[in-house]
Amino acid sequence: MSKKVVTLGEIMLRLSTPGYERFVQAESFDAIYGGGEANVAVSLANYGYDAHYVTKLPVHEIGQAAVNSLRRYGVNTDYIVRGGERVGIYYSETGASSRPSKVIYDRSNSAIAEADVSEFDFDEIFKDAKWFHTSGITPAISKNGAEITKAAMIAAKKAGAKVSIDLNYRAKLWTPEEAQKVMKELMQYVDVCIGNEEDASLSLGFTPKGLDVESGKLDANAYKEIFKQMKEEFGFEYVVSTLRESYSASDNGWSALIYNGEEFYQSRKYDLRIVDRVGGGDSFAAGLITGLLDGKSQGEALEFAVAASALKHTIKGDYNHVSREEVERLAGGDASGRVQR
Amino acid sequence: MSKKVVTLGEIMLRLSTPGYERFVQAESFDAIYGGGEANVAVSLANYGYDAHYVTKLPVHEIGQAAVNSLRRYGVNTDYIVRGGERVGIYYSETGASSRPSKVIYDRSNSAIAEADVSEFDFDEIFKDAKWFHTSGITPAISKNGAEITKAAMIAAKKAGAKVSIDLNYRAKLWTPEEAQKVMKELMQYVDVCIGNEEDASLSLGFTPKGLDVESGKLDANAYKEIFKQMKEEFGFEYVVSTLRESYSASDNGWSALIYNGEEFYQSRKYDLRIVDRVGGGDSFAAGLITGLLDGKSQGEALEFAVAASALKHTIKGDYNHVSREEVERLAGGDASGRVQR
Amino acid sequence: MSKKVVTLGEIMLRLSTPGYERFVQAESFDAIYGGGEANVAVSLANYGYDAHYVTKLPVHEIGQAAVNSLRRYGVNTDYIVRGGERVGIYYSETGASSRPSKVIYDRSNSAIAEADVSEFDFDEIFKDAKWFHTSGITPAISKNGAEITKAAMIAAKKAGAKVSIDLNYRAKLWTPEEAQKVMKELMQYVDVCIGNEEDASLSLGFTPKGLDVESGKLDANAYKEIFKQMKEEFGFEYVVSTLRESYSASDNGWSALIYNGEEFYQSRKYDLRIVDRVGGGDSFAAGLITGLLDGKSQGEALEFAVAASALKHTIKGDYNHVSREEVERLAGGDASGRVQR
Amino acid sequence: MSKKVVTLGEIMLRLSTPGYERFVQAESFDAIYGGGEANVAVSLANYGYDAHYVTKLPVHEIGQAAVNSLRRYGVNTDYIVRGGERVGIYYSETGASSRPSKVIYDRSNSAIAEADVSEFDFDEIFKDAKWFHTSGITPAISKNGAEITKAAMIAAKKAGAKVSIDLNYRAKLWTPEEAQKVMKELMQYVDVCIGNEEDASLSLGFTPKGLDVESGKLDANAYKEIFKQMKEEFGFEYVVSTLRESYSASDNGWSALIYNGEEFYQSRKYDLRIVDRVGGGDSFAAGLITGLLDGKSQGEALEFAVAASALKHTIKGDYNHVSREEVERLAGGDASGRVQR
Amino acid sequence: MSKKVVTLGEIMLRLSTPGYERFVQAESFDAIYGGGEANVAVSLANYGYDAHYVTKLPVHEIGQAAVNSLRRYGVNTDYIVRGGERVGIYYSETGASSRPSKVIYDRSNSAIAEADVSEFDFDEIFKDAKWFHTSGITPAISKNGAEITKAAMIAAKKAGAKVSIDLNYRAKLWTPEEAQKVMKELMQYVDVCIGNEEDASLSLGFTPKGLDVESGKLDANAYKEIFKQMKEEFGFEYVVSTLRESYSASDNGWSALIYNGEEFYQSRKYDLRIVDRVGGGDSFAAGLITGLLDGKSQGEALEFAVAASALKHTIKGDYNHVSREEVERLAGGDASGRVQR
Amino acid sequence: MSKKVVTLGEIMLRLSTPGYERFVQAESFDAIYGGGEANVAVSLANYGYDAHYVTKLPVHEIGQAAVNSLRRYGVNTDYIVRGGERVGIYYSETGASSRPSKVIYDRSNSAIAEADVSEFDFDEIFKDAKWFHTSGITPAISKNGAEITKAAMIAAKKAGAKVSIDLNYRAKLWTPEEAQKVMKELMQYVDVCIGNEEDASLSLGFTPKGLDVESGKLDANAYKEIFKQMKEEFGFEYVVSTLRESYSASDNGWSALIYNGEEFYQSRKYDLRIVDRVGGGDSFAAGLITGLLDGKSQGEALEFAVAASALKHTIKGDYNHVSREEVERLAGGDASGRVQR
Repeated sequence: MSKKVVTLGEIMLRLSTPGYERFVQAESFDAIYGGGEANVAVSLANYGYDAHYVTKLPVHEIGQAAVNSLRRYGVNTDYIVRGGERVGIYYSETGASSRPSKVIYDRSNSAIAEADVSEFDFDEIFKDAKWFHTSGITPAISKNGAEITKAAMIAAKKAGAKVSIDLNYRAKLWTPEEAQKVMKELMQYVDVCIGNEEDASLSLGFTPKGLDVESGKLDANAYKEIFKQMKEEFGFEYVVSTLRESYSASDNGWSALIYNGEEFYQSRKYDLRIVDRVGGGDSFAAGLITGLLDGKSQGEALEFAVAASALKHTIKGDYNHVSREEVERLAGGDASGRVQR
Repeated sequence: MSKKVVTLGEIMLRLSTPGYERFVQAESFDAIYGGGEANVAVSLANYGYDAHYVTKLPVHEIGQAAVNSLRRYGVNTDYIVRGGERVGIYYSETGASSRPSKVIYDRSNSAIAEADVSEFDFDEIFKDAKWFHTSGITPAISKNGAEITKAAMIAAKKAGAKVSIDLNYRAKLWTPEEAQKVMKELMQYVDVCIGNEEDASLSLGFTPKGLDVESGKLDANAYKEIFKQMKEEFGFEYVVSTLRESYSASDNGWSALIYNGEEFYQSRKYDLRIVDRVGGGDSFAAGLITGLLDGKSQGEALEFAVAASALKHTIKGDYNHVSREEVERLAGGDASGRVQR
Repeated sequence: MSKKVVTLGEIMLRLSTPGYERFVQAESFDAIYGGGEANVAVSLANYGYDAHYVTKLPVHEIGQAAVNSLRRYGVNTDYIVRGGERVGIYYSETGASSRPSKVIYDRSNSAIAEADVSEFDFDEIFKDAKWFHTSGITPAISKNGAEITKAAMIAAKKAGAKVSIDLNYRAKLWTPEEAQKVMKELMQYVDVCIGNEEDASLSLGFTPKGLDVESGKLDANAYKEIFKQMKEEFGFEYVVSTLRESYSASDNGWSALIYNGEEFYQSRKYDLRIVDRVGGGDSFAAGLITGLLDGKSQGEALEFAVAASALKHTIKGDYNHVSREEVERLAGGDASGRVQR
Repeated sequence: MSKKVVTLGEIMLRLSTPGYERFVQAESFDAIYGGGEANVAVSLANYGYDAHYVTKLPVHEIGQAAVNSLRRYGVNTDYIVRGGERVGIYYSETGASSRPSKVIYDRSNSAIAEADVSEFDFDEIFKDAKWFHTSGITPAISKNGAEITKAAMIAAKKAGAKVSIDLNYRAKLWTPEEAQKVMKELMQYVDVCIGNEEDASLSLGFTPKGLDVESGKLDANAYKEIFKQMKEEFGFEYVVSTLRESYSASDNGWSALIYNGEEFYQSRKYDLRIVDRVGGGDSFAAGLITGLLDGKSQGEALEFAVAASALKHTIKGDYNHVSREEVERLAGGDASGRVQR
Repeated sequence: MSKKVVTLGEIMLRLSTPGYERFVQAESFDAIYGGGEANVAVSLANYGYDAHYVTKLPVHEIGQAAVNSLRRYGVNTDYIVRGGERVGIYYSETGASSRPSKVIYDRSNSAIAEADVSEFDFDEIFKDAKWFHTSGITPAISKNGAEITKAAMIAAKKAGAKVSIDLNYRAKLWTPEEAQKVMKELMQYVDVCIGNEEDASLSLGFTPKGLDVESGKLDANAYKEIFKQMKEEFGFEYVVSTLRESYSASDNGWSALIYNGEEFYQSRKYDLRIVDRVGGGDSFAAGLITGLLDGKSQGEALEFAVAASALKHTIKGDYNHVSREEVERLAGGDASGRVQR
Repeated sequence: MSKKVVTLGEIMLRLSTPGYERFVQAESFDAIYGGGEANVAVSLANYGYDAHYVTKLPVHEIGQAAVNSLRRYGVNTDYIVRGGERVGIYYSETGASSRPSKVIYDRSNSAIAEADVSEFDFDEIFKDAKWFHTSGITPAISKNGAEITKAAMIAAKKAGAKVSIDLNYRAKLWTPEEAQKVMKELMQYVDVCIGNEEDASLSLGFTPKGLDVESGKLDANAYKEIFKQMKEEFGFEYVVSTLRESYSASDNGWSALIYNGEEFYQSRKYDLRIVDRVGGGDSFAAGLITGLLDGKSQGEALEFAVAASALKHTIKGDYNHVSREEVERLAGGDASGRVQR
């Protein structure tokens, strides 16, 4: 019997222009359902866990299509509440070379943003659950979203599940002040905190030094001091960050750093040729959860997570369609890309 | 110098499943911009008028794409106000045989629905305008929409333009009571009133007898009594209705009836094999406006309108891409469909 | 808690040419997973039953994609055995007018055809099951297939489930002699027997008179005598047949006949404009099962089944993506095809 | 060893809008190579003849793609002269219902139109040939085209081949006066003359009475008188015409008439639901040639030709991808469109 | 009120194979309208200028589609003369790695090539115009083209507009001797001359030393001497060249050099990962015109132009769909390609 | 008269996911016909040889489509035997960056694998043939395949043709022991042996030292010793190997080594940006055969072969659509990728 894991958040309809088309050129949109925590759920189902997704979606066919996208890839959708008016939307175009990818949000008033905490039976949801994951986006979408997140975390802890969060600060959704007010309170329930320095600064108020994100170069040492502060203040079991070096929209460097309060581990770095970077961070989170749930060391877990997310950057859509075997092969060092017959 | 005509309303993004796909099958959506009055504007530009469209659209690229779709087909977009958050959306799938087409709306809080009447300089907009057209959808989308519609009608009349309206009752937007309260007041400014019996009943409170819309068969005589009542109460110059006989989602009968207070004229009937029926009514309205603006008799104008809209049913998308010559050829009796070389 | 229903059979990869392309024109194939009993399972899940599919599929990604296509639409796939070498294939092109649709099979040696009966725990599978459905294709694909079918039927009966079969004679898979030898023995376990006169003749040896299938016209009376004989010989609870009148590849007449041993009921007839007729019979079977499971009269159940399958002919792919509400609306008489807003 | 047949003419690039799109909507064109006589050649290769195509095409890749389209379907292209500047083009959009299909030509100065008669070694080309077919388009495209056609006919007769022509008057290429001057002279070499009344009138100067092509209804009797006159004046072995009744762009009636100087034979009539009618006449010509070459009676040959071309109307592109068996099955009376498994 | 700018030239239909397909593989072509000066016009409209395009196009729908492509992106098409027979065509395939992109022209006898200078009212066209831009392609397409170009330049100067030209030597259209005869005379009207060393040599007769274009490496110093000579001979205000280093069809280095008679400014160099390089030079010209019209220094203007054209290489089609803000962000140094949310 | 060359083997249907889609995402497959020796045949036809392909294919339309794909590109298919049940299939997805391409085979029981040697008239097939090429895949697919290969080699030698083989070891088809038993015997007929060290080891039993294929780096020296041993044992005229350095699935280094018993020649190395690497080795073999048949030196032949196959990696599908001129230009040193106008 596989372990039960629960993730909670929004699932949106991504309307993505084909190929490298700009919005004003598009005569059609690829219809891709996804969202931070939903992407994590699909990965966890892929790796063999009994993955459940919790959200609210309208009863109409667009809501149903979102449900179906999760079922298709093995996620249990029994806890999804049905109702509300709309599925949140975002439009996306894929950048290349010196032209960045671009996203236009149209997510206000989605079913989950307007859901009431009373609609979810969290005691039932977290029964026998081993892990709960969500992100900083869910509490940001609405006051209701923040309440739901908090209630879920409390129920998860009560049920004995580990709790992880991907800070994921979104400037379109709230200000740093609003974010910190909500997020700092939530951190007491969190065991594993994932977030880059920008997230740490904007969501939790930690001011890093010596980091220059725009330059495309990263100094892992600058992260270490922040990690220590975060650990100290909130008592996290693990503090984790991906280290993305944006050479261009087509090419990134990709690695990660983890800290268990005793030592730091920095992963191998991958040079990514990007197909679709949406969901890259989510695939990392899912890989890390998998490694830790499997009982790997923090270093092994991190290498699994980084390899998983390196693969995600080569796959179109939000979901990371890779198997454990494929991740292990890459994490084990075979990046030659030779044909698998 | 071609005559200036003005239309006002919303323009939405139609997310349309390819071919006959159902929503739950769709992996992409065709991106089609359109909306009742915008569709009329494109037809009027096609027929050579100086057609202007008035609405409000966000500054982001999705708003821009809506503007571009109008410019592409010759509509002047100088009066479009830019701002607001979102472009209204609707999802559509195309029916066939016994399966009806289906539409899911997601249009709340669009830029035009939240626009303020003060954002439009209607004196400037209607300067030298010969015709103004809108529909019953615009006042239905919001209280602001109703105010804007009324202000536009007043300015149009002041400028000496003829005013036409397509009643277009939408049950998703308001109740008959709400509709009648708003619509009845607007009718004083209207010269040409277009609407089927359902619209007449729900928007204006006329109770027709002996009509059975669901049966797919229509009795034109039953319309005549309503037309007389409408003419009497509101003093319209013309009362007009299309007569759609829905044999199935693939095949319809299509004709129309007009009344100028003196006599009725019923058009030739077309048997339509349908490619895309969205915008069928709008192409009819544009054909009628064109006929009347050109100084045709009510009978000639109606035949032009019916032929134009018969052609629209064979064209994908909301807009009716036909020339005057093509409409005249069909109205003139050549429906053989022989190849034009 | 919804009723548990079980279906068993093969699920194949249909490689379907786009639009009306012939095989020699195709530069791509639409990848459609489906198969008689799998199609039934998807419909039953759509109608709200706890639908389970039983088959064997390879562990590789093509096998997984077949599993996913079922999960996507709500079918429980926990009883699918994984293993074997290949997913059965068939190539299909869609006919039009006087050109018939065409199918090329490449299904030998599929995983389910080579599966051993011992791989399935039928006691577990049929625990609490209310209905079991399969078709005459499964016993035809191989000797193993016949054994599996028989074992499933026995277990189903033992568990108290009703058993239905769609005779579905396939000349490419076996001869009438081979078929009758196997099928006649299976009939003792069957409660509801579905099959047209061709099936009855070739699979069970009943020789109808006065039927001329090629003519496109059907005489329902000729079926009645056969139904009586079938009922008499095998003790079926219901004998059922669809009545397809093939005017052309594009247009068919579609109705059905049922007999409960006491009286015959012939359904309303639909004139179908065909989008994709593959799975038409399966959608009928699923509709019939639904009507009977719901406790409808044989007439009501048949009308539900015929309406459901009329809708299927308008939907691309093997699966019938319709809701109960849509079927009821059509069965209730609204075939006007007016837009559902 | 199969019989050698030779066809001569232009092969063009058809730039065809997808689906039912109008030219102004198209963001892409389907690239379809074809042309009257080339279409005949492909059919003849399909039916098993040693079919050769004679034309001139540029050496660049677009010219090569035209050659490849013929090779792909079994036509021998060894006699195609390579050189010249351009491949003739035409843009096409597919009509539906009351909207006719439309064609825009851009074929001036194509390689074959500018080819010199001396570039073709007709003695070699017609060595052992049993049949030669061309159309009235080739002499119309240029003075050179007319010379080449004449030289080919003379050589064909000399070699003992039967000669057939499809009159195919094209108003965009020449006037009736120009046409008749050239065509009448060519008729002395023709054994089988195919053309409807419009062709007979415009290309050869026969004035039919009582025909009303636009009405969509045809009176076969009116053809008979013309056939007799044509036979008398030019001594044709057979005079043949298809009888197209254009109900609409989607639906046509389709039959044919043949006259061998002794008796008339009128074929069965097919009601066509049209997928692509381009090449319909060419598929008829190829069917007729096949029937006559095979030694069938004029009636049998005509039924084969009509059935072949009825099938063509269901196939996208210019070429008729059907086998002898498929044609024979339809000509034999099976038009039920039942799936071929 | 935005500044009026005028560009003149041809607009062609580019028939572009999808993805990286070679011509002989293509079953469809993307239909892309564009052409050197039209591409400049679209960019100028994008940057907010009142951009007018002057050309001649047929009245048929292909001509209309070319007009529409300009209107869609905000170019004023009121000065386009309608008439003539054909829209010029070119076929293109996109190269990759060691395989170069390839173009096949079919542009002879286009409407603009056969237009007469008297068809254009240049006094009206250049009324209040601030800038006129054309290229060396327009005078090359025909004698008429050369006359039209000259007349336009004279009228532009008379109206007080600045005149820029992109030399753009095309070996398929004329010889160096023919080019120099025409081009040298035109240079007296030119203020801003854009062209690489190959253009300077073939169109104007300047023989550079020490340049090896094929090697993929460029020596900016070698350009400087030529720039000085050009300035001296023709009195240009600015002499400008892009510096393309072709590492492969997929990767280029991209920078530029400008000279105002006093000093040279060499821009930052971008490493381009190419999506579509067609229109790269045109987007550069438009960027330069924008910078100079805005009153920027030659260095700032050049950096804007290089950044604008770096972005163009990432966009499919001829037109450069970027905003001023996007160009400024890149010119300002942010080439990290981080997602814009 | 061009030289006759014969290749023998299987041709399969490659079902390839679009773009970079993974198998579980695919809603359609690109239908690509190809196979090692068929790919060689197409290249040889491209280079102007009278290329014949020998295989067995079913008579149904999928078999015909495979034949047509060869005819389309100029391969003579007269020697293809028609019959058997199925066309072998493989599914493929294209990797990127650190994710390898993946292939799933479904090729058992194909027509050629089940063909009998007596079905091929090798005396007729090799009449006047100058070269015969096959690969180690054909003898591996079945015992019959091995017999056919041997009979063909004997007949080829008897007819005076040169014989080349591409060792191409396939672990899914046989074990090294089985392979060596068959392959060693065949080597007596081989003049030109192509294969990398893996092939040499697994198919012929040569154990190389110091090679680490997975590392992505190659040491050409390590090959030389093996080449000498191979030459010594089997008396080959030439021993040849490509040298692929797999940096990732997107980027490879590509060069080759040849040995004529006297001296080694190592080619220039290309850095490939990969579009589709399937058929890369086959395009190399065809280039080598062409060079040797043309009478080039081993160095020149090898450079031609490497350039040809470098180009192949930029072309989608199995076949290498390049001309001699394009190969010569690249082999001659122009890898700048500048647009060919």
